Amino acid sequence: MGETREPEAGLQRWAAGVEYDGTPWLGWQRQKDGPSVQEKLEKALGFVADHPLELTCAGRTDAGVHATAQVVHFDTASRREAHAWILGGNTNLPDSIAIRWAQPVAPAFHARFAARSRRYRYVIANRPVRPGLEAGRVAWWRRPLDVARMQEAARHFVGEQDFTSLRAAACQAKSPVRRVHEVTVRRRGEYVLVDVHANAFLHHMVRNIAGVLLAVGDGRAELDWPREVLAARDRRQSGITAPAGGLYFVQVEYPPEFAMPDQEAPVLGPVPASV
Amino acid sequence: MGETREPEAGLQRWAAGVEYDGTPWLGWQRQKDGPSVQEKLEKALGFVADHPLELTCAGRTDAGVHATAQVVHFDTASRREAHAWILGGNTNLPDSIAIRWAQPVAPAFHARFAARSRRYRYVIANRPVRPGLEAGRVAWWRRPLDVARMQEAARHFVGEQDFTSLRAAACQAKSPVRRVHEVTVRRRGEYVLVDVHANAFLHHMVRNIAGVLLAVGDGRAELDWPREVLAARDRRQSGITAPAGGLYFVQVEYPPEFAMPDQEAPVLGPVPASV
Repeated sequence: MGETREPEAGLQRWAAGVEYDGTPWLGWQRQKDGPSVQEKLEKALGFVADHPLELTCAGRTDAGVHATAQVVHFDTASRREAHAWILGGNTNLPDSIAIRWAQPVAPAFHARFAARSRRYRYVIANRPVRPGLEAGRVAWWRRPLDVARMQEAARHFVGEQDFTSLRAAACQAKSPVRRVHEVTVRRRGEYVLVDVHANAFLHHMVRNIAGVLLAVGDGRAELDWPREVLAARDRRQSGITAPAGGLYFVQVEYPPEFAMPDQEAPVLGPVPASV
Repeated sequence: MGETREPEAGLQRWAAGVEYDGTPWLGWQRQKDGPSVQEKLEKALGFVADHPLELTCAGRTDAGVHATAQVVHFDTASRREAHAWILGGNTNLPDSIAIRWAQPVAPAFHARFAARSRRYRYVIANRPVRPGLEAGRVAWWRRPLDVARMQEAARHFVGEQDFTSLRAAACQAKSPVRRVHEVTVRRRGEYVLVDVHANAFLHHMVRNIAGVLLAVGDGRAELDWPREVLAARDRRQSGITAPAGGLYFVQVEYPPEFAMPDQEAPVLGPVPASV
């Protein structure tokens, strides 16, 4: 199962980097009622392996959430070169999912438990009219956002804290404590980018952080509202959960001994046509 | 009809800026065998006008080609405020099409004939594995591209020239002569951006220019091959037509007397997650 820390005897452990457009999928996790990224990847890689296999990911993404740098691991009895996993996998995957790299890893590697930190990016189109070209790939905020205010408010989220107020009702994590290393808020033309770097995340945590920052950014909430939200330890205090389509899982960091490839994959974000 | 230079008596002429993801559509132009951007927009704006109307665009885009700054005009007997056209139109449009702005214009304005120049951007993902997240939104080129070589080769396209070698067989333009003002080629991480600014374009012209530059950029063709291609005046000389999904219609320039809004809309292109 996915929780197994080391591969069974005779099996080799592999890691792979995966990107996907989350729009058509019910999310990372295999579901009975519809298609998931995990199901498609397990099918494609199982076809290459010539046996069924099970994937464990660094971070489960919700329906509609995108990834540039999801990391997975799997155990296999089949001996294949990296290019066979990558090219064979991609040939058998839908267009909106792609394997970026694959490599054999030490038995102690675990995509989820070995991860030291993760980074998510939240992309907001801040403009009077709804996005068309970027529908499902950005969140839309009509009212002007003050990015300096958002950045100032964001500092409340940094540090090891109880994020009960910012987790989903359905969140299954045992502890609500997470360590946020950094939150940065920047404007690029009509887009606002919110990057959150933490040891790990609770369910809906980034989308709830984005929701709080949107309220501060458009002037509906005070600068230190995030502090009050956190202190309340009550998820009904945090306001809106920002939509899934603006969220990108962009980086996973592992201890250097695993010699993982650079996780820093480019996110398609805003580039002014004029640049 | 679309070719009418001035509105009929009693009708007011409006211009609008439109963006769309071209993936789901057969292209700009109304088609009998499937959905087009023109059909969806005419339906949405006709709903606001409360009468059927016909749109004329600045540049017809092919199936799968995107736009950040398409410009259209239409004539209407209905008196509406700009926000009614924009918000009412967007409410009645599919998610992947949006009206960015609308304004009444002088009777002499014509989205196509008044345009002084147009700009297209071609986006290439230059990496070993196919794109997933950006499937249908970028072209994929596996072999490394030398952007300096591409830029050097691109200068052959600049100037007023016969572009017979770079037009589609189906191209309906009377003259194959166009004036290219500038071609710029830049790298942003794993993406290569080709911007082409010209007075007007022939059918497939940007995609054929991109195809030629890809051949030079990966070393299969010599630096002055574009000059030979142009001199041949034979479209069989130009090699591949780069795929539609990498192409964005990003700007239309009109004479200042029409007081059109700034056409410079941001294109979602590559932003490194690390920036």
